[in-house]
Amino acid sequence: MEWTTNSLGRAIPTEIAGRILRPYGDMEAVTRFVPGKKKPCAGDCAQIARRRLDKRVASWDELLDRLSIRDGATISFHHHLRNGDRIVNEVVSRLAARGVRGLRLAATSLFPVHDALLPYIRSGVISRIESSMNGSIGSACSHGEIEEVCILRSHGDRQRAIAAGELKIDVAFIAAPCADSFGNANGLSGKSACGPLGYARPDSQNAACVVVITDGLVPYPCQHWSIQGSNVDYVLEVESIGDNAAINFGTTKLTRSPTQLIIAETTARFIETAGIMKDGFSFQAGAGGISLAAIVFLAKRMREARVKAAFAHGGGTGALVGLLNEGLLGSIIDLQSFDLEAVRSCAENPNHIESDPYASYGPLAKGCVADMLDVAILGATEVDIDFNVNVNTHSDGLLLHGIGGHTDAASSAGCTIITAPSFRKRIPVIREKVTTLTCPGKYVDVIVTERGIAINPIREDLVEKVTGSGLPLVSLEELMHDVQKITGVPEAPHFKERPVALVEWRDGSVIDIVRELDV
Amino acid sequence: MEWTTNSLGRAIPTEIAGRILRPYGDMEAVTRFVPGKKKPCAGDCAQIARRRLDKRVASWDELLDRLSIRDGATISFHHHLRNGDRIVNEVVSRLAARGVRGLRLAATSLFPVHDALLPYIRSGVISRIESSMNGSIGSACSHGEIEEVCILRSHGDRQRAIAAGELKIDVAFIAAPCADSFGNANGLSGKSACGPLGYARPDSQNAACVVVITDGLVPYPCQHWSIQGSNVDYVLEVESIGDNAAINFGTTKLTRSPTQLIIAETTARFIETAGIMKDGFSFQAGAGGISLAAIVFLAKRMREARVKAAFAHGGGTGALVGLLNEGLLGSIIDLQSFDLEAVRSCAENPNHIESDPYASYGPLAKGCVADMLDVAILGATEVDIDFNVNVNTHSDGLLLHGIGGHTDAASSAGCTIITAPSFRKRIPVIREKVTTLTCPGKYVDVIVTERGIAINPIREDLVEKVTGSGLPLVSLEELMHDVQKITGVPEAPHFKERPVALVEWRDGSVIDIVRELDV
Repeated sequence: MEWTTNSLGRAIPTEIAGRILRPYGDMEAVTRFVPGKKKPCAGDCAQIARRRLDKRVASWDELLDRLSIRDGATISFHHHLRNGDRIVNEVVSRLAARGVRGLRLAATSLFPVHDALLPYIRSGVISRIESSMNGSIGSACSHGEIEEVCILRSHGDRQRAIAAGELKIDVAFIAAPCADSFGNANGLSGKSACGPLGYARPDSQNAACVVVITDGLVPYPCQHWSIQGSNVDYVLEVESIGDNAAINFGTTKLTRSPTQLIIAETTARFIETAGIMKDGFSFQAGAGGISLAAIVFLAKRMREARVKAAFAHGGGTGALVGLLNEGLLGSIIDLQSFDLEAVRSCAENPNHIESDPYASYGPLAKGCVADMLDVAILGATEVDIDFNVNVNTHSDGLLLHGIGGHTDAASSAGCTIITAPSFRKRIPVIREKVTTLTCPGKYVDVIVTERGIAINPIREDLVEKVTGSGLPLVSLEELMHDVQKITGVPEAPHFKERPVALVEWRDGSVIDIVRELDV
Repeated sequence: MEWTTNSLGRAIPTEIAGRILRPYGDMEAVTRFVPGKKKPCAGDCAQIARRRLDKRVASWDELLDRLSIRDGATISFHHHLRNGDRIVNEVVSRLAARGVRGLRLAATSLFPVHDALLPYIRSGVISRIESSMNGSIGSACSHGEIEEVCILRSHGDRQRAIAAGELKIDVAFIAAPCADSFGNANGLSGKSACGPLGYARPDSQNAACVVVITDGLVPYPCQHWSIQGSNVDYVLEVESIGDNAAINFGTTKLTRSPTQLIIAETTARFIETAGIMKDGFSFQAGAGGISLAAIVFLAKRMREARVKAAFAHGGGTGALVGLLNEGLLGSIIDLQSFDLEAVRSCAENPNHIESDPYASYGPLAKGCVADMLDVAILGATEVDIDFNVNVNTHSDGLLLHGIGGHTDAASSAGCTIITAPSFRKRIPVIREKVTTLTCPGKYVDVIVTERGIAINPIREDLVEKVTGSGLPLVSLEELMHDVQKITGVPEAPHFKERPVALVEWRDGSVIDIVRELDV
């Protein structure tokens, strides 16, 4: 056995059972984190340990000086404040003023409030977007206005890509309604309370640098660590991170549209008839008009049949909170709150559980919440006769929506139901081929339209259960032809060859591309 | 641009901006976790997704059949049930019965109840231990009875070693008082409730295979995810995981020893006199006799001076819960509960925060709770005149204690106080050189004994603050000589050359070794 001596004069073998031993040395021994240093303090800075860590910076300028973000850097944001967010625009405009260019924007989603980014996209401050692009920014992408090819990922795929190192984040900016000087943060309290902060968790765990921006600084320790301060580099206190009253953007009140009400009621009827609605079942539904109405109709059937669901998953809404409080629902597993009633419930009710994209949708996880779903009620812009679904582009080829949790839920739930009208504004929704293929038909079990229900033939079990029940079953081909009699066969959009966005499947493979419009 | 076609017939570029694209393919698309398969289901198993995930196995035998643990495997356990744990012995004896040999045991700590492992150590079923070894197992290690060289790590270093891949765990067995069929688990409720489960979190996040063993199965979703089910492979329900009444093992009631009371009162007096005891301060103290008494004396001074502490960190005790409820303490940040009063408080009081070794002590974290400590009150088996501390071996050379959070807290807290009698049973505690060097003197600020207080000369600030205060200041050399007049200079233990254990510093370097006793 060979021996050496460490810096404290202790004799240490050089090797044990094939492991080369590293003798203790003062230089390496200090693992104290020093804010602003990439690596732990390398000198003998034992004295630094005598002060409490305080990660606060005094101003935006001090923060950005310390971050020294370079051209081409990737910056990330979460969308828990939805259309009320003030942080994305603030950061990008400040970086633009500093002359930074070629940024990759990796937000979890973008909203109309972020249309303010369009000038920065056109001027090259932002050259890539890896995020859900909704509305004007999606449209700009379709028209070839974003310099580089963008990437559309589901919530689960984004978490996977970050954990796998495919999406490397240089700086994560995390807007936090409640945080302490160490960076522990949550969205449950504070004037901008927005509920869960889970979408930012992968960023906080993997970004090279993590900044918490808060308008609700509390003394250390902030109680509920949705974001662990041990992952945070800097804390910036600001007057306002946004307007939490705007988190209900994109969700609607209960629909009055007769078409939508028919679809919603048919969906609820199908779920009961197919035997899915039984004690202890679980469901996920979006916050759109049809989904909200479907939940109302389903709840009515649950009351009548005295059936209780174990949990609902997805975005928290006042409607779900009502069911939870009524006892029709055992738990809500909440990735983001869509209204302030859900925010309050998430803060106060232990049965209202805050989740994150790994636990809810993680493709590399050992199972996720979506795997525990009996039924998912999802939307679509188009469906084709092979049950393939498009949620990203409209039939005119414009990119107008992100994937969200669609493919994660669709490929995991026990029964995936797509609710959609058979046509919108004289444009058929049921098509020979979808314009963009977001989710393969093999994961799509049922299409519910106002003209009937189409069940994927691979789900013989479902066909068998509802046959003879009086439910209006149709085939997608028939439906397509019926609709075409009303709408005609619309002309396909004209595309250039150039891809403007990749659509990733949950495993990071490319399931489709979006091409630049030729107009 | 070169193009290919994916399995859905969509045209995909082969490369975009240097990134080789992987076309969607049905085989790879299925990322569904299937319990018992190392990798996600590789065939087209969309149908599997139609069933809810249920990770339960029916029996120990079914579990061990599926795990097929091989000779030389590393198995891990947590110690939240302390001397009440039944799972470590159960697993090892069952593996022994199956003929498995050469196991590496990576428990977070071991207790007298685990003396039942000694026959398996002697027969070679267990050939390495990477854990705190207390009592008989430590003694067996000192006598060379463990085949391979063991490793002693602090709680923080263990988390680091696991995250860094230095400690690779094949199977983590996690005893959980409350869990669901998916593996979400906590220690807050159930008949064996033991409080936090944080010590098992690094194992759950990094082990190749994770098993949750529970005697408190609840319907999915179990509410509080101390362990995320998304990290769990199997769930086994058993009659009993242990006796939570025994979690107070190793802690003592308030001491009646006059020597210990003097040390405790002197410690409290020092903390007040040095100006550390001020509004919003923070402290960590163990659950041993002197520490508990020091907290009582400190609380008395806090009441008199109307000072409130922001938080206490470390193990939760009824004593701390009392201060929390009295309002003398803003929060408890709890790594493990030492009694059932702390367990209840952790479950019910949001100001009683469950932590984990990464957040509390993580050497590679961007700061940890220990960095926010104003003062840590820690123990020692020996201290030398350079303020170096030994917490592992006794002066006779026997390995009898683990490191616990000692070095993590000592190297991070604003003021590190070691409390110890100047001699025990005629063996001096203050020595020329410590038998084993666990923590370097540069991190040790103050030694409090019944014969006075020694302040590390590098802490000129502390010396200045208490000089003239009437506190009994001494030098360690004087103290050593005074004690030697009573005890004599004890003979050093006789060691063989062979190391039986490595003592790691928080960064994985080797600060000292423990040698085999020559007796």
